[in-house]
Amino acid sequence: MILDKVSMPCDLKNLSIDEMKKLAAEMRELIIKKVNVTGGHMAPNLGIVEATIAMHYVFNSPVDKFVFDVSHQCYPHKILTGRKDGFIKEENYLKYTGYTAPQESEHDLFTIGHTSTSVSLATGVAKARDLKGEKANVIALIGDGSLTGGEALEGLNNAACLGSNMIIVVNDNDMSIAENYGGIYDNLKLLRDTDGKADCNFFKSIGFDYIFVKDGNNVEKLIEVFEKVKDINHPVVVHICTLKGCGLKVAEENKEKFHWILPGTLDDEKIERTNDEGYEALTCNYILEKAKQDPTVIAVNAATPGVFGFSKEFRNELGKQYTDVGIAEEHATAYVSALAKQGAKPIFAVMSSFVQRTYDQLSQDLCLNNSPATILVYWGGISGADCTHLCVFDIPLISNIPNIVYLAPTCKEEYLAMLDWSVNQTICPVAIRVPSNELVSTGVEDKTDYSILNKYELVEKGEKVAILGLGTFFGLAKKVKEELSSKLGIKATLINPKFITGIDKELLDNLKKDHDVVITLEDGVLDGGFGEKIARFYGPSSMKVLNYGAKKEFTDRVPLEELYERYHLTKELITADISKLI
Amino acid sequence: MILDKVSMPCDLKNLSIDEMKKLAAEMRELIIKKVNVTGGHMAPNLGIVEATIAMHYVFNSPVDKFVFDVSHQCYPHKILTGRKDGFIKEENYLKYTGYTAPQESEHDLFTIGHTSTSVSLATGVAKARDLKGEKANVIALIGDGSLTGGEALEGLNNAACLGSNMIIVVNDNDMSIAENYGGIYDNLKLLRDTDGKADCNFFKSIGFDYIFVKDGNNVEKLIEVFEKVKDINHPVVVHICTLKGCGLKVAEENKEKFHWILPGTLDDEKIERTNDEGYEALTCNYILEKAKQDPTVIAVNAATPGVFGFSKEFRNELGKQYTDVGIAEEHATAYVSALAKQGAKPIFAVMSSFVQRTYDQLSQDLCLNNSPATILVYWGGISGADCTHLCVFDIPLISNIPNIVYLAPTCKEEYLAMLDWSVNQTICPVAIRVPSNELVSTGVEDKTDYSILNKYELVEKGEKVAILGLGTFFGLAKKVKEELSSKLGIKATLINPKFITGIDKELLDNLKKDHDVVITLEDGVLDGGFGEKIARFYGPSSMKVLNYGAKKEFTDRVPLEELYERYHLTKELITADISKLI
Repeated sequence: MILDKVSMPCDLKNLSIDEMKKLAAEMRELIIKKVNVTGGHMAPNLGIVEATIAMHYVFNSPVDKFVFDVSHQCYPHKILTGRKDGFIKEENYLKYTGYTAPQESEHDLFTIGHTSTSVSLATGVAKARDLKGEKANVIALIGDGSLTGGEALEGLNNAACLGSNMIIVVNDNDMSIAENYGGIYDNLKLLRDTDGKADCNFFKSIGFDYIFVKDGNNVEKLIEVFEKVKDINHPVVVHICTLKGCGLKVAEENKEKFHWILPGTLDDEKIERTNDEGYEALTCNYILEKAKQDPTVIAVNAATPGVFGFSKEFRNELGKQYTDVGIAEEHATAYVSALAKQGAKPIFAVMSSFVQRTYDQLSQDLCLNNSPATILVYWGGISGADCTHLCVFDIPLISNIPNIVYLAPTCKEEYLAMLDWSVNQTICPVAIRVPSNELVSTGVEDKTDYSILNKYELVEKGEKVAILGLGTFFGLAKKVKEELSSKLGIKATLINPKFITGIDKELLDNLKKDHDVVITLEDGVLDGGFGEKIARFYGPSSMKVLNYGAKKEFTDRVPLEELYERYHLTKELITADISKLI
Repeated sequence: MILDKVSMPCDLKNLSIDEMKKLAAEMRELIIKKVNVTGGHMAPNLGIVEATIAMHYVFNSPVDKFVFDVSHQCYPHKILTGRKDGFIKEENYLKYTGYTAPQESEHDLFTIGHTSTSVSLATGVAKARDLKGEKANVIALIGDGSLTGGEALEGLNNAACLGSNMIIVVNDNDMSIAENYGGIYDNLKLLRDTDGKADCNFFKSIGFDYIFVKDGNNVEKLIEVFEKVKDINHPVVVHICTLKGCGLKVAEENKEKFHWILPGTLDDEKIERTNDEGYEALTCNYILEKAKQDPTVIAVNAATPGVFGFSKEFRNELGKQYTDVGIAEEHATAYVSALAKQGAKPIFAVMSSFVQRTYDQLSQDLCLNNSPATILVYWGGISGADCTHLCVFDIPLISNIPNIVYLAPTCKEEYLAMLDWSVNQTICPVAIRVPSNELVSTGVEDKTDYSILNKYELVEKGEKVAILGLGTFFGLAKKVKEELSSKLGIKATLINPKFITGIDKELLDNLKKDHDVVITLEDGVLDGGFGEKIARFYGPSSMKVLNYGAKKEFTDRVPLEELYERYHLTKELITADISKLI
């Protein structure tokens, strides 16, 4: 094994080209085996093996600085920077994160998991180098899919003026997570078709020097080009064409499916992330049905259709009533605002973690214009996710903007009723926090008129203690109610708030008569969230309020049960807290 | 006067070219006179007069749809769409807003004041047209300065694939608010220098058809080109070169100064927005001094240097220790994060309203990486501003993100101490809410060690009622204290919290001993803000809490005094509220 001799970048320096080719094959084997066991980003890492070897062969990390984009293609880099143990033995498979992580290695500059950031960050790294009077190469790696994100484009525009060394490696595998969408991609195709010789060149038009590498999986060719640009005195784009999923036939042929896989996908062809029984399937069925009835219904997403179960069949069936804007959440928000303002019925599906990328457009383009678009926020809630993909900040982000109504359904029937109301209404922007837990069904159609805003549902009237269980935490609220009954003999009141964005003053005022304590449960960060608004409401009264939710912190792959303990999100801990107050 | 015959777009249709030229001169005169009285955007509006006439001559608004960017260049459009009265008589000068406003006219599609939104919005307008099976031209107007904003670039990439009619008029006056920065501008210059014939063309590289108009202030030429692209069946960029400030010599020669002016600027040359006595000057002096001592200190802003008093002299003196990234707040945040992470000392100045454009970069690029950059947030506070430029949302936006320390100084000495601490520390990201009120000085140097986080200052110990006066509202807190003393005979406790992002548990717990009521005062929206955290803290206790700040709403040019009444932000109203509780 060549890999036996290679632990750190310096170990590469004496290898022959043939040895590096063998090394690439060995690394690929490790990645395939590991990712198939743990799940994770498969195809992006397979495509970038040779480029990573060549980068570490030519440059001297960490003196030379590598900045990865999304960093879901950093597995080969981790293998070559002292962390191969995390890919060799199964017991170490979870030792390292799936993204770059400075706490793991000095070769990782940033903790990154969102897209389109590498060029901006690398520009700052290069400028710091210049201010400090140091010498080093700064290398930003960015995939073609990430190029359409506003931050990347802002970064490219500024990087071009840096006036000193910066090497931007554009890893062009002709794919985003799904297909690429956008005018830039026609230019990338033109460049591929002309071996980079076309006069009309996106990168040159922004002011970059430019080098094209046809075979980005050829380590020899890559080394030759990297040697050429090493110590360059101005910004240059090295456009390398790679094969996403390279070396794993099934991934090469199913790039979207193998972008990120569940454990065991290679062993069982049937493993798919779509869940026919969950809220994703419900949503898809609703949209397809509604789109047939109304030609102005349009589903929109920003480059992650798989997250929402928007399969190829779904996308094809919708045809012109579907837009994937590419990685471009800001544009997506403005786009659906304008669609709604002009009388169409747009439904924008977005992950909680990625809705963060478009605060100002939510505020200015959407809410200030009071455009009746529907935004479906997926995966909102406390989880054991990586620190880069936490989904606990969407409530403070969205719910403190005027005009928008943010809804938290607790079951299938409520969700469908809210969705249908939202799509048909023309009053205001509506966001719905699609439940991230398993589908709950009451079996009873929800006939609530959601145009009566901020009306909470009094599910069961009790006394002394009232429990407001928001969205996915309504189930926990029910459990707390039972626990209070069995442990403290309290028949508590159970409330389903439904509206994250408003206060049901009448209902809350009524509670003052025969309640001493109100508790709020929300599946997200407490700071700026729902519970604090209830605390503010009761501030001038003698009602005691306990808010439950996540602490304001970035957690990193902490098991969910541990977080629930930490945040007192169990019926036992909550009941114990309440017992101290009454 | 030609203008006597012209009230609506249809009135243009029978004018001769000569008459339109006269009309342009008349409109220009109105705009110059009006803006000199009211203040506002001067140069952008003067540059676009002919293009606006030509657009309304050729197209049929509101069937054809005009989407303006920033919309600070919509005055000629307002004059031609039934609103010339607002520009003729001085008593009507404030009748219409300075931005497009659908409530004023069906010719205005969106309420817009932030930049780089027009292409995205127009793409949605065009798509809605297509879904509805209608026919109409959709015309987006965007300035060269706005092109670098991420949302514009995301929008262009998607617009290029629309597959149907869309006309993007790029109004290139070779200026942003200040000079343009970024690689794109070299390409625009190349296109201007080659009459649009250069092979390397930014717009073509994204997939647009392209037409160049050398003299964008020639109404005849513009009409010819607009006639040509009218009813086009695919997206096209019409790149027009205009003169910013056209027709007003002093504005043509001082484009930055005349981008937006104060009332009376034409009558008194000395009128400048910089205030030698205020926080802007303090900041500039601090930065210049610090930068001399330390070559890694770097000031960064995104295209609005004038707001911070970053004059040409200031910028020149800093030289390489200054970066204007152009309109690119997302990039700016990532850039300063990387600078700080690499050991430099970046200071990023940004307006409260525009920091909204970079939530995710604050969260992911900056705070998740705990980069010790300094962010100065200007103009934060309740004001009588346009609904598009409210500065009340920065506290919920910033303070609910983990790791960042958001500080609220109440006077000059505190501000300088906080700024100096922030620039020198290497622990975490720090934002400082630069006071937006007049400079207050205690005359006593602040020697607080701000590395002891979340320590509030107990300014004066009293009993029964404690007043937490945050930042600019500390003055109001003092007044409330006096009022409580004189009206209710209560010697209240006065607290300067300083830290927006944290709770001083010890101090707040101590208040429980001899206080019944805590009131919080913050110069921003209550929802998700500082006061709610205090309400949450005291939720389980018997302390009564009253939160004062702005209601969650978009206000539009409402006089400040009226807002203060509405929100009970006067010593009398607050004292009356408190009297009901004790």
